[in-house]
Amino acid sequence: MAAIDKIKPHVRAIKAYTLDPIDTPIKINQNENPFGMPAVIKEEVLRRAAAYDWARYPEFIPTRLHEKLAHYTGWRADGVMAGNGSNEMIQAVINATVETGVRVLLPEPTFSVYAQVVKVMNGDIISVLLNDDLSFNIPRLATAIKVQKIDVAIICSPNNPTGCTISKRDLEMLLRNSNGLIIVDQAYLEIGGEDFVPLLNDYKNLVILRTFSKAMAMGGLRVGYCLAAPELITEFMKCKMPYSLNYFSMTAAEVALDHLDLLHPLVEKMQHERDRLFRALQTINGLKPMPSAANFFVVKTAIPPSELFAALVERGLLIRDVSKAPMLNDYVRISVGTPEENDRLLAALREIFV
Amino acid sequence: MAAIDKIKPHVRAIKAYTLDPIDTPIKINQNENPFGMPAVIKEEVLRRAAAYDWARYPEFIPTRLHEKLAHYTGWRADGVMAGNGSNEMIQAVINATVETGVRVLLPEPTFSVYAQVVKVMNGDIISVLLNDDLSFNIPRLATAIKVQKIDVAIICSPNNPTGCTISKRDLEMLLRNSNGLIIVDQAYLEIGGEDFVPLLNDYKNLVILRTFSKAMAMGGLRVGYCLAAPELITEFMKCKMPYSLNYFSMTAAEVALDHLDLLHPLVEKMQHERDRLFRALQTINGLKPMPSAANFFVVKTAIPPSELFAALVERGLLIRDVSKAPMLNDYVRISVGTPEENDRLLAALREIFV
Repeated sequence: MAAIDKIKPHVRAIKAYTLDPIDTPIKINQNENPFGMPAVIKEEVLRRAAAYDWARYPEFIPTRLHEKLAHYTGWRADGVMAGNGSNEMIQAVINATVETGVRVLLPEPTFSVYAQVVKVMNGDIISVLLNDDLSFNIPRLATAIKVQKIDVAIICSPNNPTGCTISKRDLEMLLRNSNGLIIVDQAYLEIGGEDFVPLLNDYKNLVILRTFSKAMAMGGLRVGYCLAAPELITEFMKCKMPYSLNYFSMTAAEVALDHLDLLHPLVEKMQHERDRLFRALQTINGLKPMPSAANFFVVKTAIPPSELFAALVERGLLIRDVSKAPMLNDYVRISVGTPEENDRLLAALREIFV
Repeated sequence: MAAIDKIKPHVRAIKAYTLDPIDTPIKINQNENPFGMPAVIKEEVLRRAAAYDWARYPEFIPTRLHEKLAHYTGWRADGVMAGNGSNEMIQAVINATVETGVRVLLPEPTFSVYAQVVKVMNGDIISVLLNDDLSFNIPRLATAIKVQKIDVAIICSPNNPTGCTISKRDLEMLLRNSNGLIIVDQAYLEIGGEDFVPLLNDYKNLVILRTFSKAMAMGGLRVGYCLAAPELITEFMKCKMPYSLNYFSMTAAEVALDHLDLLHPLVEKMQHERDRLFRALQTINGLKPMPSAANFFVVKTAIPPSELFAALVERGLLIRDVSKAPMLNDYVRISVGTPEENDRLLAALREIFV
């Protein structure tokens, strides 16, 4: 028997998630904070890292960070689990809940990692497409949850890649009618969408995922966290590797939370640039940007997405071709950059769509 | 239905892996490199981190690190996967191979994370105890592999917590007779034990895990890697979260590999101190250290392990009480510290075992 036959068939069937490395002067393909981490925060983190003995394991539970996150989010510290990016949080929650026969609801298109993790666990994926205007189809989600005995639903709000959001009222209705868990990925919450933390008190089946990778300017350091009822957190912890949050990233998250006053203005700039870029994209013949609460848009293009992607790479701009996602055949995704980057993008697009 | 009922029953049945935080001047409970990271390496890593834009995701595949690891280990770069500690490597390999009904062989006692990860996936654990002298019971492992249709075996060599090793000849015999994968965790290889990389050419069912957390003085930064046939690595990658290796830790691993000349002498000091500490422990009435290839020992104690643990904490030394592990009722585990730390330990033990 070949060694490869010991890989689970449903893992072998997965198409690997990949991203070709392309180097361009302007990178607006990963929804990062284009302004970078404020120097004051970097310096303090580097100072602490210089003083720390790197050979020593981080704390088993990052208690101080959990307490700061409790204060920041308004949730209880024993209902917080921080780890290696919200990807690890997704994996822990899915590993804790999904196996053969478990039914997982995904609005689609959405962040591709969800389906990948569910497939590793051999869960059954039930997809509900967005509406034609790329908003969540709430009635169909509600019906699926009720009729199709959904065990776990994953809703990304604001949704990657479309930027649509679910309202608190709609989410509450789904939570009330669900016999399963509803995981809401709020990676982009600081930039837009309603905060669902207040619902955690009333709905024990709500799990919220958040991250330092976007508004908090720490995509390179990988810190995410999960908010849920303490009894769920206890179980998720068993499915997360011990010490998964390294000392440096943990420290960076702590220092960032001590300097929110430096990060807030960057978020406001991102929101302002998002609105400006949206209006400007609307004026370009051949492009139709879709409204988004986050720091990116999907944009419908009159030329094939792969051609638009290549034409922008030629002009030094890297965007994301999302045309392989359901419903998005004619779309690309563009992250909001700095004012200068957005101006360069608009100039390039005006050149392409003459 | 309560939300907690959506947690898989075999996850709820797991006893959480925990470690109480106890602060003592001397910490010899986690098999860390007691000499710390050389200053030259730290400074270079901090310099690069200061220049990097933390808001930007790390590379999708850490190609440069994979190439350096290929050079360091003597294996091919497309057969390397680096990530967030060898814990993440264990999880990826187990997630790729284990589900209900899959049979996993564990020599015991061993590193407790293996059983935890297998239980999350609902695999069947087949345990084979060590020999009475705490060496691997090779005939029983061979029989289990043949007769009990083992799909995945996990062998830690040097073994945590006992320090025993498997020989290349014995491992080859097991590989030849196995229809499944054999994962060998060589976290402590730089400190002792035979290097099994040469076997990767001949045995496609061999998977080797290694780490920067021990000899390489990076326990706080969490970098591990997996070496295997490229076709296996492709599958394991699907079960590992993208971007799980943060920029800082990735950079630290690269810089460490560029300065092996600074790390080698520390390893030699650890080996020398291990041998000295072993001989000294043998002279203490009431203690029996077991031979170990790594930078720790299990030590049989004439007083209850919990009492010895407490008596050492009182004297400012933190060791590991491993008495809940199979076969180790009467044992503690002690990591090798700096010469001064080892002297302090010996003085404290001589006081306790008067």
